[in-house]
Amino acid sequence: MAGSSIGTIFRITTWGETHGKAVGVVVDGVPAGLELCEQDIQIYLNRRKPGQSKFVTPRKESDLVEILSGVFEGKTTGTPISLIVMNGNQRSRDYSAIMNCYRPGHADYTFDRKYGFRDYRGGGRSSGRETIGRVAAGAVAAKILSQMGIEFTTYAKAIGGISVNMDAFDKDEITRNPFYMPDAKAAAQVSDYAEKMMAEKNSMGGVVECRVHGVPAGIGDPVFEKISANLGKAMLSIGATKGFEIGDGFAAADSNGAMNNDPFYIDADGRTAKKSNHSGGTLGGISDGSEIVFRTAFKPTPSIAQVQNTVDKFGNEIEIEIQGRHDPMIVPRAVVVVEAMAAITILDALLVNMTARLDRICEFYNR
Amino acid sequence: MAGSSIGTIFRITTWGETHGKAVGVVVDGVPAGLELCEQDIQIYLNRRKPGQSKFVTPRKESDLVEILSGVFEGKTTGTPISLIVMNGNQRSRDYSAIMNCYRPGHADYTFDRKYGFRDYRGGGRSSGRETIGRVAAGAVAAKILSQMGIEFTTYAKAIGGISVNMDAFDKDEITRNPFYMPDAKAAAQVSDYAEKMMAEKNSMGGVVECRVHGVPAGIGDPVFEKISANLGKAMLSIGATKGFEIGDGFAAADSNGAMNNDPFYIDADGRTAKKSNHSGGTLGGISDGSEIVFRTAFKPTPSIAQVQNTVDKFGNEIEIEIQGRHDPMIVPRAVVVVEAMAAITILDALLVNMTARLDRICEFYNR
Amino acid sequence: MAGSSIGTIFRITTWGETHGKAVGVVVDGVPAGLELCEQDIQIYLNRRKPGQSKFVTPRKESDLVEILSGVFEGKTTGTPISLIVMNGNQRSRDYSAIMNCYRPGHADYTFDRKYGFRDYRGGGRSSGRETIGRVAAGAVAAKILSQMGIEFTTYAKAIGGISVNMDAFDKDEITRNPFYMPDAKAAAQVSDYAEKMMAEKNSMGGVVECRVHGVPAGIGDPVFEKISANLGKAMLSIGATKGFEIGDGFAAADSNGAMNNDPFYIDADGRTAKKSNHSGGTLGGISDGSEIVFRTAFKPTPSIAQVQNTVDKFGNEIEIEIQGRHDPMIVPRAVVVVEAMAAITILDALLVNMTARLDRICEFYNR
Amino acid sequence: MAGSSIGTIFRITTWGETHGKAVGVVVDGVPAGLELCEQDIQIYLNRRKPGQSKFVTPRKESDLVEILSGVFEGKTTGTPISLIVMNGNQRSRDYSAIMNCYRPGHADYTFDRKYGFRDYRGGGRSSGRETIGRVAAGAVAAKILSQMGIEFTTYAKAIGGISVNMDAFDKDEITRNPFYMPDAKAAAQVSDYAEKMMAEKNSMGGVVECRVHGVPAGIGDPVFEKISANLGKAMLSIGATKGFEIGDGFAAADSNGAMNNDPFYIDADGRTAKKSNHSGGTLGGISDGSEIVFRTAFKPTPSIAQVQNTVDKFGNEIEIEIQGRHDPMIVPRAVVVVEAMAAITILDALLVNMTARLDRICEFYNR
Repeated sequence: MAGSSIGTIFRITTWGETHGKAVGVVVDGVPAGLELCEQDIQIYLNRRKPGQSKFVTPRKESDLVEILSGVFEGKTTGTPISLIVMNGNQRSRDYSAIMNCYRPGHADYTFDRKYGFRDYRGGGRSSGRETIGRVAAGAVAAKILSQMGIEFTTYAKAIGGISVNMDAFDKDEITRNPFYMPDAKAAAQVSDYAEKMMAEKNSMGGVVECRVHGVPAGIGDPVFEKISANLGKAMLSIGATKGFEIGDGFAAADSNGAMNNDPFYIDADGRTAKKSNHSGGTLGGISDGSEIVFRTAFKPTPSIAQVQNTVDKFGNEIEIEIQGRHDPMIVPRAVVVVEAMAAITILDALLVNMTARLDRICEFYNR
Repeated sequence: MAGSSIGTIFRITTWGETHGKAVGVVVDGVPAGLELCEQDIQIYLNRRKPGQSKFVTPRKESDLVEILSGVFEGKTTGTPISLIVMNGNQRSRDYSAIMNCYRPGHADYTFDRKYGFRDYRGGGRSSGRETIGRVAAGAVAAKILSQMGIEFTTYAKAIGGISVNMDAFDKDEITRNPFYMPDAKAAAQVSDYAEKMMAEKNSMGGVVECRVHGVPAGIGDPVFEKISANLGKAMLSIGATKGFEIGDGFAAADSNGAMNNDPFYIDADGRTAKKSNHSGGTLGGISDGSEIVFRTAFKPTPSIAQVQNTVDKFGNEIEIEIQGRHDPMIVPRAVVVVEAMAAITILDALLVNMTARLDRICEFYNR
Repeated sequence: MAGSSIGTIFRITTWGETHGKAVGVVVDGVPAGLELCEQDIQIYLNRRKPGQSKFVTPRKESDLVEILSGVFEGKTTGTPISLIVMNGNQRSRDYSAIMNCYRPGHADYTFDRKYGFRDYRGGGRSSGRETIGRVAAGAVAAKILSQMGIEFTTYAKAIGGISVNMDAFDKDEITRNPFYMPDAKAAAQVSDYAEKMMAEKNSMGGVVECRVHGVPAGIGDPVFEKISANLGKAMLSIGATKGFEIGDGFAAADSNGAMNNDPFYIDADGRTAKKSNHSGGTLGGISDGSEIVFRTAFKPTPSIAQVQNTVDKFGNEIEIEIQGRHDPMIVPRAVVVVEAMAAITILDALLVNMTARLDRICEFYNR
Repeated sequence: MAGSSIGTIFRITTWGETHGKAVGVVVDGVPAGLELCEQDIQIYLNRRKPGQSKFVTPRKESDLVEILSGVFEGKTTGTPISLIVMNGNQRSRDYSAIMNCYRPGHADYTFDRKYGFRDYRGGGRSSGRETIGRVAAGAVAAKILSQMGIEFTTYAKAIGGISVNMDAFDKDEITRNPFYMPDAKAAAQVSDYAEKMMAEKNSMGGVVECRVHGVPAGIGDPVFEKISANLGKAMLSIGATKGFEIGDGFAAADSNGAMNNDPFYIDADGRTAKKSNHSGGTLGGISDGSEIVFRTAFKPTPSIAQVQNTVDKFGNEIEIEIQGRHDPMIVPRAVVVVEAMAAITILDALLVNMTARLDRICEFYNR
């Protein structure tokens, strides 16, 4: 199936596997007239680059993006933008240790069952490198959104069970520690815990939180195209994700109506606003003008160097030790992926929403 | 936007609002040759009918489904199946108390901001009656899946913070208590708590868990069409949902790789299987042949009869008390909605998956 | 496959077969705020009603439309509009003569091969009654377009090889003859020819031409979503169509560049315009501001009462005489179907086009 | 809008403009297990290469394709195949003569109206080079179809009004003349006519016919996804097309039912077959097992070196002479584009059709 595209009006199509020649994305439906250069995209890609601390894989990947189409004289033309990142690191390695074996927690077995065989080099299409296309496309979406006053704050909410103290939230701290945590104390705890886990050849999971500021009320649709449902799909389409929640999320399930309802009031500017934000910025699947807040759960990196029991494709029970330079935690590099997917989803919803009211359509065309 | 359809090959389109003439669904892409009658669908609809205990709304709704097309001589023809349920209960009431006011936790405000006005009678399209179309379509999907040996077990995992003890799981108990809980003791606790909350004019949230047995390995696609992502979207498109998790979900984020990875082994029948199921039945977004297990969080019913602060559409701060016969908890009636959306999602993925391998396609056409 | 929907933002889903209980359509993506009542739709349906002259089937079908959802206090709410027309004429007839036989020119054989069996009553889903949903949805689209100054002139260009003399084009004449021809002389010739053909138990084909006035320049997309390609698909999806051409169409293939190119000039209002319209109102798949002109070819009605050679589903060669009250020509009743599909296609393209330019998007949201 | 993709299960997304860095296509939904190398695609691209006769542009374009993803150890993996062709010929030229002017018959004016500006170098995205992605993707589709016994014969039916004599049809002749005509005599006439037109700085249109052998009965869907409608859209999405017809097409409109109906009979192998093929291989939008035959009309190349009247974007009436090396006729190089789009469309319909019958689905999964 053609499962590599997402979006209705602003639609991206990613391609490429980790040990192929390149990875990339076609970003279609970009409005004409956006000033765009490679550097706009590169700053996003750099946020997911490996090798930036001892807590992520030390692999060197330069990950330089090239714009192949859709931009003319520094501006988007309205036609598809093809973005490519060459895979520098495709030297032929010895894969004999894993080519026939099913790594626990990986998609080796499911790919074989689906397709009959698989590209066994480093996870192929289910590798983390698949997210390069998402991040590159998200950079384009985020640049458009920033021109409408929509901004993202994305960070690690928890790693290895150690959570940020939200009362001590410090936005500036996010980029000061290798975990993208908005709380230096929590980051220090994670650092200690991570060193211990890495010594044990183990890995950690975590939670990424994203806050979207400035989304006008009215975005999203009432039934299947709820903004919350589409954010959920976007996040759960990222590899290694196991959960998504918006606003109070699973905690709301334990709450009661009197506590969970957000009372409306009239703010100082005479506008309708909410006194609290248990809803996380959406009501009935449509944005309510307050901050959109959601969380995505990532499982621990499945590639660990401990001895693991598994089977090979010939039906033998075997033991494996996964070698190589793997991230002991996915979350730090996933922060920008979450933000990118959020930007793609929200931009698409904003574009679609332009057609919701007849009076505005008539006004648009009678300009 | 055309946001009332979901699915690629098996696609449903729901329509109707709570106080309109009827609600319904068009189920397109149903394979030809399925024996189908109204009773097949009615048994699903009856599971979401109100008035079956004191813990749900006492409104009487007969909710009889009629098949208008797509079935001939008792079998589906391959053409769209139009299903309709008349709204018996559309007597003209006095809506003056709510027509101009924004109920907290409801979509009144967001609809007004999106569309400029709204159908203020009982929530219109964002009412729980919108789920009738989902359940009717889900009954069709589930009947097809049952012929492939795929079965669902769906139940309330928690209500008002009271969780089922999974060690005491009793499948038969699910239909013996009004909460659809597989644990009589937990159900009794919920009953007590619910009485107390109802006396306080308050409401409760909860969590629905769904287990899908018999899905073959290989279903779902690697990137945006992961089976987990599509289940997430399907669930988060249901009204009042705030979270979704698959397998260990958010708990996986606190775990580590050595614990969270499911080791493969060769079972007694010589087949590859997993010793545990932290993954919840998917790896890399593709089914791995074990049970698919996921949870959906529902917020407390926003309609409560306590006095609440809010605003009206003219910008005045007001107080409201919501009258009427509202469910003090959504979960018991949502159990079948979750199951229906799961059936729709999994069937679509199964159909799409038939095209994954060239050898099987050639075999199919050289029959 | 879910093949009963068309459109991206304004999307319709038709359902129903000729001898089922009803036929209908769900019209999704209708902007909120359109004044809409059943009469708006009925006037379109009446244009395709049978029994209006001796040159179409004398069957009586009242074809009264009912709006089941999506309209509140006389205005569209932005939610799906479900439209239904009951099938009055479903008395049980004796189908033994055709239930096992493959009528030449009909879809009996292809349905059997695709689905394994078929609804043999009157063509089922491939009957002309399937167009009721198209026409009802088209009425909604056309009402929206009329508010933007977009109007349609649709008529029979030729029937049975007798063509309208376009130099004698008389718009008022279209509704004065039973053939919807804008030329009384041609209509009289067709009348004579049709009487002769009907006496011979034979049938006629023809060509419908549609002119769309007032479409602004810039509608449609450069590659696969060309407005011309989508009009082509929309027309060729109507039963019994065999061809589509826009502007000079097939005649352009015989022409040369110097003749076929339309020179631009500056008109009296200072606007860019074209001196001729060989292109039929589109350049590069995008509307150029001049009239969109296209033609659709309809084959002769395949149901004829002459003896025909054919086979039955058991593999026997047989002779059949098709009984019943069939249209000797499809074109007069197809005129409104062509117009409806054109309205649906153009409205969708107009809505989608609102997202083409960043400056206009920013302006829209900074209102 | 995201208008650069086509197809449901087998979906292609093209990108790139003539004077950008490269053009390409992402082919998604390719079944796993197809042996595929660059040469498989190159042989298709070579058929559209310029410079192969004096009747097409003498520009030199090597147009070498590179596979960037989706193929591993010589076989498709089921993941997207990214194909790229570098634009060798992007030296900076002087575009001052055309950058502000609207060439008649081109999309300059419509792009400016849609997007506010355009890439004025050689037509940008509406250039013929956009078809490279289509042809490359079509080569993949055609290779798959050939393994199911489906083959294409595609040729120029007419150029400049000179038609092939179908009684003298000679398949081997197609590749022996520069026009891809299956009739040496007609080709010779075209050659003479073309020399005359080229001397006059004029251009010619023409008609491409495609015959598809071996499509099983039952492909396509009854309503909007008719195989005929999708072929029509695919063809009309090619630049410079003005018409499409299937089977007898517009001639059927002039015919009568007794002549136009194709009688069924039982052939020597005991199978249902048709004595004639006026329908062109489809009935009710579904393939009937006979040859699918359709035609596409191409307008004359709009780029001619004669002096033409037009306007510039500042509202001035001007004269232009278009310089450069343009094809005097589009048809010879369009033959392979038509075939590619047909292969893409038919493969997608074949894949989708696998889900039409419950018995076959059950059989597939109980393997």
